[in-house]
Amino acid sequence: MGKIRFSVSLSLDGYMAGPDQSEMNPLGIRGMELHTWLFDLEAWRATHGEPGGRIDASTPVVEELEKGFGAVVMGRNMFGPIRGEWGEASWRGWWGDSPPYHAPVFVLTHHGRETLQMEGGTTFHFVTDGAEAALGRASAAAGDDDILIAGGASVIRQYLDAGVIDEFWLSIVPLLLGSGVRPLDGLSTLPGLEVMDVVAAPDVTHLKYAIR
Amino acid sequence: MGKIRFSVSLSLDGYMAGPDQSEMNPLGIRGMELHTWLFDLEAWRATHGEPGGRIDASTPVVEELEKGFGAVVMGRNMFGPIRGEWGEASWRGWWGDSPPYHAPVFVLTHHGRETLQMEGGTTFHFVTDGAEAALGRASAAAGDDDILIAGGASVIRQYLDAGVIDEFWLSIVPLLLGSGVRPLDGLSTLPGLEVMDVVAAPDVTHLKYAIR
Repeated sequence: MGKIRFSVSLSLDGYMAGPDQSEMNPLGIRGMELHTWLFDLEAWRATHGEPGGRIDASTPVVEELEKGFGAVVMGRNMFGPIRGEWGEASWRGWWGDSPPYHAPVFVLTHHGRETLQMEGGTTFHFVTDGAEAALGRASAAAGDDDILIAGGASVIRQYLDAGVIDEFWLSIVPLLLGSGVRPLDGLSTLPGLEVMDVVAAPDVTHLKYAIR
Repeated sequence: MGKIRFSVSLSLDGYMAGPDQSEMNPLGIRGMELHTWLFDLEAWRATHGEPGGRIDASTPVVEELEKGFGAVVMGRNMFGPIRGEWGEASWRGWWGDSPPYHAPVFVLTHHGRETLQMEGGTTFHFVTDGAEAALGRASAAAGDDDILIAGGASVIRQYLDAGVIDEFWLSIVPLLLGSGVRPLDGLSTLPGLEVMDVVAAPDVTHLKYAIR
């Protein structure tokens, strides 16, 4: 069995999204600035089918994050801004016809929906029987590959509290947000940590931790 | 004129002290664990007059922190646990007869007190006319050397909000505290940051930022 892992970009004061998240502004005020280090990287653009881009110290980190997983779990808010019933079910995620996951994605929701087959190998499955069931289905799909917990913050917290996370990357951006969503806040248990790797890029510092 | 700088050890969730600070437990519950990376270092022990100790990747960071400053500013709670009037004034700091500062230290307090001349070049001056006045006196004492803002959290915040801090080191310890005191929380202005240096030691990661 592979590892269960997540990765988030954090402000220096620990936020993975700014305040006032909305459909127009899914990462909250200034939240998008947490990802500018990523968007111009060749390693990121290639996953989205775009040519060109930068190569720097972040490249091997992004390459590590992008490969080796066989299934993804995410919360409904990460899949889309719609609350309650799916209605006409026209929402197919934030990522267009070809999402960057290229693997089965299990979306935690209280509202069932038909599986969505996207281009490039991504399939969205809607799981209504809870986080443990979603992880079980992801595990069966992933086989020996890793399972990526894609977020958001409450889903990451839920799996940290369940004690199932093996490791995580934090990409610390030199930015103070002052308020927003902190994934490491409000844990009911505080896991022991070990530093696995540190990578200094010009505009971000990547820290990898294992949970002991 | 030198730089105005501070350095703190932080848990991965951003705390420089744990909850429930008290005279018996000045760094709060588990707060002392934020400093274990430091205590065995030769560079730290030497400043306290103790022989021996470890040399590792943290050594040049600690050496940089310990040299080049000509004055220190700290809050009263960092100097001692006594609140209100000084009473018999027998409290002479947490550090014994020879504090590790070896420079004039300006203690922010509402209660005046005679200057304390300690061994090894440390002098405690008690400043009752506010943070700006303390910084002015520290600047006059430091000359071309740096001024070290020693803490605690509220004093660091005060000088960050005043826009006078030039740079700071965060030593990120692989530890989650869950609650306590966060020096980068509650700022009234959010300064722009630039990463200056990253040093990975086995048990701690040091990040140096400049304020722009």
